[in-house]
Amino acid sequence: MRLRLMAIDFYFDFASPYGFIAAMQMQALTRPVRWHPFLLGAIYKAVGQSPLEHALKRDYVINVDAPRTARRIGLELKMPQGFPEHSLPPARAFYWIDQRDPTAAVAFAGDVYRKYRLQGRSTTDIEVVADCAVAVGFAREAVLAGVQSRETKERLAAENEAALRPRVFGSPFFIVDGEPFWGSDQIPFLNAAG
Amino acid sequence: MRLRLMAIDFYFDFASPYGFIAAMQMQALTRPVRWHPFLLGAIYKAVGQSPLEHALKRDYVINVDAPRTARRIGLELKMPQGFPEHSLPPARAFYWIDQRDPTAAVAFAGDVYRKYRLQGRSTTDIEVVADCAVAVGFAREAVLAGVQSRETKERLAAENEAALRPRVFGSPFFIVDGEPFWGSDQIPFLNAAG
Repeated sequence: MRLRLMAIDFYFDFASPYGFIAAMQMQALTRPVRWHPFLLGAIYKAVGQSPLEHALKRDYVINVDAPRTARRIGLELKMPQGFPEHSLPPARAFYWIDQRDPTAAVAFAGDVYRKYRLQGRSTTDIEVVADCAVAVGFAREAVLAGVQSRETKERLAAENEAALRPRVFGSPFFIVDGEPFWGSDQIPFLNAAG
Repeated sequence: MRLRLMAIDFYFDFASPYGFIAAMQMQALTRPVRWHPFLLGAIYKAVGQSPLEHALKRDYVINVDAPRTARRIGLELKMPQGFPEHSLPPARAFYWIDQRDPTAAVAFAGDVYRKYRLQGRSTTDIEVVADCAVAVGFAREAVLAGVQSRETKERLAAENEAALRPRVFGSPFFIVDGEPFWGSDQIPFLNAAG
């Protein structure tokens, strides 16, 4: 007899619009969710994938499908000019916060993601990260130093490595009791899985 | 005032499992559907895409997601050993039949697709194509000659070219009043589009 619901592992890159669309729906899941930000670039390099591949797919994703998918859940995406950029600052800050207060880390993830995808702020901008860390109770100087610490950098590198073990290769990606689900369109099926 | 519903253009490769999953749901659409089989290989070559890209995505699509997506609509996929193979015979036969009887061509497409994806028959096998053409009223010898005719080959080449104009780059792909939709997960949104 299984006495508790399996947690859902939620993998995402802070630069990913579909990761954002997924993050905004995690409260609809009936199971606990473990948030795992990672760097798609590191994963793509490991598995041999190219991001967005060609102009047609890139245009479809950025200008048609991601905004349309967001509008279906009432959100108006604002993509920054430089998209896609790397997301090292928020990924590192997430794990620095997570080490100190895991609940605050999830709140931070939602806050920072909204700034990127609803306000069009850059994922490379450390000031956005600092503002959101302050909003969940941390001192600005502490988080600015924290994201540069060797411990934080090693933690993110280890998390990127760890994402490869359950064969994660995209964002968002979910693992439920060993079963993989790729894409925000899979969210309606997660509660019943496992 | 618009007096009639816009047709939905449905692009697919007979080798594509998600194309099959889409084809089996076309009767749920409230608009007329125009079927456009094409060769993904030709499209991928034109736009610079690689099919299934890497082992992780390939394994996820073939062994996890395509069978699971099919089961959600009550179908049990059977993938042939050599998957993915080209689908020249059914694509050519479709257009040969379409030239003579467009309604029969759509019935043929459903029949032949079921043999590929539910019985695991090979998309390169001309006998499967001949059987299905006979089932919709054509003489075996006529279709076997027809798929080899210059006219049929040129028609398929022209259809592949034509698919690139509305920027189709995957299977299944839908165009509704100029709006592109990629993937079988988009079917629930097609009736309301355009």
